[in-house]
Amino acid sequence: MKKSTRIIKLFMIFFIIGIFMRTSSILVAQKTHRFKPTKFYFTYDAKHEPVLKLMPGDTLVTNTVDAFGNKISRMDQKASEIVHLPKVNHQTGPFYVEGTGPGDTLVLHLLKVRPDRDYAVSTHLPSFGVLTGETYTAMLNEPLPEKTYIWKLDLKRYVGILELPNSKMEKIEIQLHPFLGTVGVAPNFGEAVLSLTPAEHGGNMDCVETKEGTTLYFPVFVEGGLFMLGDGHAAQGDGEICGTGLECSLDVTVKVDVIKGKTIYWPRFEDDEYIMVAASTRPVIDAFRSAQVELINWLVQDYGFDRWDALQLVSQVGVSRIGNVVDPKYTVVAKFPKKYLPTKE
Amino acid sequence: MKKSTRIIKLFMIFFIIGIFMRTSSILVAQKTHRFKPTKFYFTYDAKHEPVLKLMPGDTLVTNTVDAFGNKISRMDQKASEIVHLPKVNHQTGPFYVEGTGPGDTLVLHLLKVRPDRDYAVSTHLPSFGVLTGETYTAMLNEPLPEKTYIWKLDLKRYVGILELPNSKMEKIEIQLHPFLGTVGVAPNFGEAVLSLTPAEHGGNMDCVETKEGTTLYFPVFVEGGLFMLGDGHAAQGDGEICGTGLECSLDVTVKVDVIKGKTIYWPRFEDDEYIMVAASTRPVIDAFRSAQVELINWLVQDYGFDRWDALQLVSQVGVSRIGNVVDPKYTVVAKFPKKYLPTKE
Amino acid sequence: MKKSTRIIKLFMIFFIIGIFMRTSSILVAQKTHRFKPTKFYFTYDAKHEPVLKLMPGDTLVTNTVDAFGNKISRMDQKASEIVHLPKVNHQTGPFYVEGTGPGDTLVLHLLKVRPDRDYAVSTHLPSFGVLTGETYTAMLNEPLPEKTYIWKLDLKRYVGILELPNSKMEKIEIQLHPFLGTVGVAPNFGEAVLSLTPAEHGGNMDCVETKEGTTLYFPVFVEGGLFMLGDGHAAQGDGEICGTGLECSLDVTVKVDVIKGKTIYWPRFEDDEYIMVAASTRPVIDAFRSAQVELINWLVQDYGFDRWDALQLVSQVGVSRIGNVVDPKYTVVAKFPKKYLPTKE
Amino acid sequence: MKKSTRIIKLFMIFFIIGIFMRTSSILVAQKTHRFKPTKFYFTYDAKHEPVLKLMPGDTLVTNTVDAFGNKISRMDQKASEIVHLPKVNHQTGPFYVEGTGPGDTLVLHLLKVRPDRDYAVSTHLPSFGVLTGETYTAMLNEPLPEKTYIWKLDLKRYVGILELPNSKMEKIEIQLHPFLGTVGVAPNFGEAVLSLTPAEHGGNMDCVETKEGTTLYFPVFVEGGLFMLGDGHAAQGDGEICGTGLECSLDVTVKVDVIKGKTIYWPRFEDDEYIMVAASTRPVIDAFRSAQVELINWLVQDYGFDRWDALQLVSQVGVSRIGNVVDPKYTVVAKFPKKYLPTKE
Repeated sequence: MKKSTRIIKLFMIFFIIGIFMRTSSILVAQKTHRFKPTKFYFTYDAKHEPVLKLMPGDTLVTNTVDAFGNKISRMDQKASEIVHLPKVNHQTGPFYVEGTGPGDTLVLHLLKVRPDRDYAVSTHLPSFGVLTGETYTAMLNEPLPEKTYIWKLDLKRYVGILELPNSKMEKIEIQLHPFLGTVGVAPNFGEAVLSLTPAEHGGNMDCVETKEGTTLYFPVFVEGGLFMLGDGHAAQGDGEICGTGLECSLDVTVKVDVIKGKTIYWPRFEDDEYIMVAASTRPVIDAFRSAQVELINWLVQDYGFDRWDALQLVSQVGVSRIGNVVDPKYTVVAKFPKKYLPTKE
Repeated sequence: MKKSTRIIKLFMIFFIIGIFMRTSSILVAQKTHRFKPTKFYFTYDAKHEPVLKLMPGDTLVTNTVDAFGNKISRMDQKASEIVHLPKVNHQTGPFYVEGTGPGDTLVLHLLKVRPDRDYAVSTHLPSFGVLTGETYTAMLNEPLPEKTYIWKLDLKRYVGILELPNSKMEKIEIQLHPFLGTVGVAPNFGEAVLSLTPAEHGGNMDCVETKEGTTLYFPVFVEGGLFMLGDGHAAQGDGEICGTGLECSLDVTVKVDVIKGKTIYWPRFEDDEYIMVAASTRPVIDAFRSAQVELINWLVQDYGFDRWDALQLVSQVGVSRIGNVVDPKYTVVAKFPKKYLPTKE
Repeated sequence: MKKSTRIIKLFMIFFIIGIFMRTSSILVAQKTHRFKPTKFYFTYDAKHEPVLKLMPGDTLVTNTVDAFGNKISRMDQKASEIVHLPKVNHQTGPFYVEGTGPGDTLVLHLLKVRPDRDYAVSTHLPSFGVLTGETYTAMLNEPLPEKTYIWKLDLKRYVGILELPNSKMEKIEIQLHPFLGTVGVAPNFGEAVLSLTPAEHGGNMDCVETKEGTTLYFPVFVEGGLFMLGDGHAAQGDGEICGTGLECSLDVTVKVDVIKGKTIYWPRFEDDEYIMVAASTRPVIDAFRSAQVELINWLVQDYGFDRWDALQLVSQVGVSRIGNVVDPKYTVVAKFPKKYLPTKE
Repeated sequence: MKKSTRIIKLFMIFFIIGIFMRTSSILVAQKTHRFKPTKFYFTYDAKHEPVLKLMPGDTLVTNTVDAFGNKISRMDQKASEIVHLPKVNHQTGPFYVEGTGPGDTLVLHLLKVRPDRDYAVSTHLPSFGVLTGETYTAMLNEPLPEKTYIWKLDLKRYVGILELPNSKMEKIEIQLHPFLGTVGVAPNFGEAVLSLTPAEHGGNMDCVETKEGTTLYFPVFVEGGLFMLGDGHAAQGDGEICGTGLECSLDVTVKVDVIKGKTIYWPRFEDDEYIMVAASTRPVIDAFRSAQVELINWLVQDYGFDRWDALQLVSQVGVSRIGNVVDPKYTVVAKFPKKYLPTKE
């Protein structure tokens, strides 16, 4: 073999390894980072200094405090005296991911999303929630009575327990399904968005799907993506109608990855059962439309469906969940069952 | 025993039997009626002549034709040339239930809801559906292309099969879950409502929950209730986004009952898993609110929950489904898991 | 001239006169009908027996009672005890117009719309209006306090006067601009619509434009059109936010006409300043869209504008008013200034 | 008089003068500042460096470029190739006002708002506007055709002239009523908001009321207020339905003032006829509600009306305009006629 051939061969090997590393991040040493937050943000903003730099393939082990900054733990505490809207939803981060920038997709594999304590808090704030006049559905009524509910968490049985002294049923036990109420990247176009507000960058989607075992995809708008997370809920119903879930601090483990050159318009999720899109705007019908259109585009681009066939199939097997209807923008999650997808080549 | 005592005793026995009959309808001979429809209605209207009178406890075995009056069975047929909106959703009925009137609740146990043929039809009508300008979301765009999809139904394997010549996937098989798209009673206050429109009386809710095995509760507004049914779907995704499901004629068996003196404000459903409320209005958020408030009132009145506890619990374990977002009013179904209910005494 | 020619000539003359009469109604004796209502309707319904038959060109002199059936005249009367929603908005009529049917346009020239008494009533009903939870924006708040306001009407100075003992200002005087809150024709497709609800047939649009001096155009859906009117307001702000205007009985004079073969989709109005479309649906944005699209179509069809030029011009000189946001459907009026229209040939 | 007494007297005089200056700004020399912008912002953001510091009472003479950065002047130019949403609405500023901070109200007297050139531009962007599917009302339709309209401005006759080669009418002349489409202060809570988006801080309200002769009041959220302005329109219809008005660069003169310690929640305006509130959110009904509630609160707090009297009066004489329904949030302006206000003491 001539020297030049060998050089070409070597070059090709490195080239292939390079591509391989770029796409799968397997050959580089993948680190696990432990990060203990001490400072929290109330906005998603590209101007925030990153707290840590990660490589694609790295794993992050961290914590989040609850939406009230862990300041409420007793029934006699009033949220309206302790926190001041919209300065809630303390975010851990931002985390900078090396080698990603505008036009890419950031991938977060949620390996662990678990309560790190034995209680959760839910409040009825006086002018918050979908069944009362509030900031953006202003009314002249008197507000609802303020309430603080402390749920006991039994992490062995994975249930939440609430005493109900005013009801016929003395206590209730519900299954836990902890998730990140808020997770996303720095927004586009120089916007800084409240951690209370969901949008194209993710943020406060308050949808139960962002739980352990789900993979999240976010559009990347700035160098490093700058993802943050917080607002853990040990459980929550659809829509989060009173305005809060089982607010709880969390242990979180996330494996980070990047899809270079792949542009998406709304956060996408994937678990064993569904591919999903989470769109956030007001009114609900427009969040619904945005999620469906992004889901149809996904089916067309990645799975080879004709546009009108995709519309037909989403019409027949699509599942849609109302994420939240209490934040400054509402979130709808449109889902397509993976069992009906063609096998990807 | 004195004569007067015996008379009192006899009277008490009859009184108890009376109550028993009234509530459970067990002691009267319960009939099964077979009704083959030949004429169909396009409005829910107290002025329509009932086709049959039923007693509480009776069972009705009947058929519904599909939303197109069974007139479409080939891909080369255009719905826009064959049917004319809003004259679709041909209704079987109305059925008069003896002994019920305004202020009562009509109970329909859906014992059987099954396709009676081996194909279903779904269409993309040019100006219909939630992802295009249409009658009540008027726009200046050109309409979407009209399409007719014929799904083959394999009733043994209980799947629907669609050829997809324009997509990478050649065909798709989906599970069937047949349900009545439209079911309800004559509306209140002399209104006559299109069979295309859902409201307090039920009607075209297009929600997947009105399927075999579910019990439906409707407010009764006029003597006899005058229920009707139609618009069968062999399957449908949430929201019915293209405007049609797997439109199909059905074999239906319904057991009829009445709860005297029980007044409800929106249709309620119950199956093994959930108690549910289906509210219909525009926009989605208001249908959502109406369904949640009726569900909370239900929990308070029938299950002994404190009002604010009920709000807290629905916030944490409630499930909400978007029924339809294509009809003149949209439908949202709010659900509460029965496993979290107190045992009813 | 031969006899046969003369017969043909005579025939032609009669034929021409016939066409002329049909379109302009000039040659027939135009009658003025006086109608004193004794019975009132709460629905718009083609099944109602007409109270009077009119010829195109005829004039109708009649009365309407107020939305409460003239039953409230003192501040100590509570509307919630006297009327029961939705049985309000008592309608005078229906009036049958000869020679019109589906596909035509009914023309009502409002020659006189004036209060016939010296007071008007406005109420704050407990769960009605846009700034409180109500039937279709269901909430958990306590209702607003019920109020009955009696306005004195000074018909010489054409002002309404209200004492304000609880405010710094002791009384207020406002200009009157009386109008029909409700006016329309029998609806399409066999629907019967509450007199509380506006839609394609007109009905309870509650928009200030349906006043003396305005010409109204309605789509005709059934033989005779069957128009009705009621719900007079001596004055009202945009949106009718508390749910009622200055509710008042009225003297009304209407000249009736017909445009044969002209099909419109929403009520249209015309006064000295504007051509207008009133569309009614929920949410507001969709009523707004429907009104704009019908206005653009009007400009294209009757005034020779290119479709996109029409969009451009409505964008720059169009005026849009929120009619009502308290009825089961909301009404938006889109207006185009007549000074910018080409002279019609 | 003792020396100490004289010192106290002098001190008191200076103290009173100080208060007087602070509130009325009369005794300080009021400057007129001329500012020629060279750099423009696309976000409202407290982090932007102020370009100029003003004292209360000062006058600012400046210019704004149009929403396209003055880059479009010919019909053959396509906006979609020249600007990229949302990077439009170039803002002049921010201007820092001395002596104001959170909790105050900033006052802008619009002394002059006039086109500074002889043409204006309006475009139909392919996926923008309320009568087509767009970013937040996503649909599957094809977009509308892109158009660029160049309006000639005759500033002597104060009319805009458009040739209409495709319509029956060859050209149209409309009256000009120039206004600032976008004007506001730095937002609250560290948010940075697109210059395309209106909110509590003002911004892209696109309402015709922010014109010469109107006084604007904004809540102050950060030190100096940091107001900006731009997006001039020589004319515009209600709602700005195609997405653009007569986009035009402007000469602007603003007199600045401050009301210390007065907290408002939404921008307020005042002209000879009306006091007004402009609220911005989605959907329209919620912008409407927010504007009405702020207007009612204004009437109660500043004019001594009882809360329910205020509701009654706004219901009867309030005027409501739809500002824009094309921006990321919609704007509604609620107005109360000044002729019905008590004289302020």
